[in-house]
Amino acid sequence: MKDDLPEYLVGPHPDDPSLTRRLSGLDHEGKEQEISVIMERPLTIFLNGQEIVTAMTIGDFPDYLAVGYLLNQNMLRQDDRITGIDYDDDLEVVVVRTERETNYEEKLQKKIRTSGCAQGTVFGDLMEKFEDIALPRDAVLRTSWIYTLSRLINNTPSLYLEAGAIHGCVLCKEDKPLIYMEDVGRHNAIDKIAGYMFLNKIEAGDKIFYTTGRLTSEMVIKTVQMGIPILISRSGFTAWGVDLAREAGLTLIGRAKGKRFIALSGDDRLIYDADWSAIADEPRRSGRKASVVSDGN
Amino acid sequence: MKDDLPEYLVGPHPDDPSLTRRLSGLDHEGKEQEISVIMERPLTIFLNGQEIVTAMTIGDFPDYLAVGYLLNQNMLRQDDRITGIDYDDDLEVVVVRTERETNYEEKLQKKIRTSGCAQGTVFGDLMEKFEDIALPRDAVLRTSWIYTLSRLINNTPSLYLEAGAIHGCVLCKEDKPLIYMEDVGRHNAIDKIAGYMFLNKIEAGDKIFYTTGRLTSEMVIKTVQMGIPILISRSGFTAWGVDLAREAGLTLIGRAKGKRFIALSGDDRLIYDADWSAIADEPRRSGRKASVVSDGN
Repeated sequence: MKDDLPEYLVGPHPDDPSLTRRLSGLDHEGKEQEISVIMERPLTIFLNGQEIVTAMTIGDFPDYLAVGYLLNQNMLRQDDRITGIDYDDDLEVVVVRTERETNYEEKLQKKIRTSGCAQGTVFGDLMEKFEDIALPRDAVLRTSWIYTLSRLINNTPSLYLEAGAIHGCVLCKEDKPLIYMEDVGRHNAIDKIAGYMFLNKIEAGDKIFYTTGRLTSEMVIKTVQMGIPILISRSGFTAWGVDLAREAGLTLIGRAKGKRFIALSGDDRLIYDADWSAIADEPRRSGRKASVVSDGN
Repeated sequence: MKDDLPEYLVGPHPDDPSLTRRLSGLDHEGKEQEISVIMERPLTIFLNGQEIVTAMTIGDFPDYLAVGYLLNQNMLRQDDRITGIDYDDDLEVVVVRTERETNYEEKLQKKIRTSGCAQGTVFGDLMEKFEDIALPRDAVLRTSWIYTLSRLINNTPSLYLEAGAIHGCVLCKEDKPLIYMEDVGRHNAIDKIAGYMFLNKIEAGDKIFYTTGRLTSEMVIKTVQMGIPILISRSGFTAWGVDLAREAGLTLIGRAKGKRFIALSGDDRLIYDADWSAIADEPRRSGRKASVVSDGN
């Protein structure tokens, strides 16, 4: 598989010693065993003078995480000029500075815990822009891409495969994964991608978003806000996530394992071109891929 | 299996029509298919006059969720007298009233997003009591119980098996599961159990906590705060979760699948009594159980 691994703009870095730690314990036979465990560290995000939030993260891309979080909270605007991003490794603080003066004191009062790994995002404000967003109607999703993307992503050496207990989000174009971010929180992985896209002016309308996690209301809202018309997951749905996807015209594909998937929204973008003879079916409750997710949950 | 299913004090109720919805979409063959999808609804929790948080939940036990959340946030104390719990189904509001006057305005300013499904809990305050808690040293965990509990829990008809995309937390004693709560957020499932334990005066020191989710810092902190000495998961660890478990003397068992598990903390409570000839080994990347977790992530 390795030979046809995609060339990521940003990919996982399972060998980075700062992201995992070796810990030893007793196994089921009472034998000493050592395993790799994911690091989890606080990062406090400031916007200009104001402390916004402290996120628990693996800590690999504080700048992308900060910018993406602020964008997805509608605290940064697409037209904002960022004048600086200062990261202090020791203080575990990142400060994003903008030309525009900002003050979100009021916004910071609201506290809504969304489900899954989305709790704590200021949901009322997440929704602010939601109704106004029009996703490109001409975007398409070939079923063959779903299978190719799943295979490439799941065969990419990753922190998950190294240590488990982590989520992955991948920005793709057609059948090519471009940016593969991992984090202890799925919300961090998607925010890091949003930050990368903003800072590198990556177009969203022709992209596909793949996540290892559930298709909850928050994942749908963030994907729509980022302007990405298609969201794919190996995992399941929540009813509200589906409602929001249908409202926004987002193509929502869940339970994508082996040959199987189900589209609960936006199936008009689907083009059924997959050559099934070429696709090994995965047992309904596939282990490897399922546990790719399970340890990351 | 059914015949030896445990008698739960509170168990899953997969047949409750208010917790799932039938939604139809297009499957991988382009055929119309209908599936059950988990409901996700807001619940706003008040403590006396004060709005504390809005949680996204399946909505089955608003009273337990509210009380458990407030306990785990150290906003309710073990010695607090609850004078009333009012739930309004239409307004999706639950109000917990106490004899003691409460005001957590200051506390509500802090915002820390922990990893996994714990983001948004007020972490600084979660830690408040942490150092002072002494878990019972005499508690034991027989390895045979780990296998029995996993089998019983995974064979219990549940919302997960009905619809996926949901988490489970189970309070157990020895090899008996007692309270099995499910929710879209793992943090809700554990809070509902905390609320049930408080309102029904359930002792914690002789219990075992089982979760489908990762062993993150927050799961460890909540388990320790609840006074439960043993935490078991099929999923993996984060480094900080392990550090906190070791600090608190919590027995922390992860990756418990089939014969396998690893204890990264508190292995002095383990008694190796399992008769392996009686335990079918589960493939390292077991599908069924792994996806029990995967869809709940």
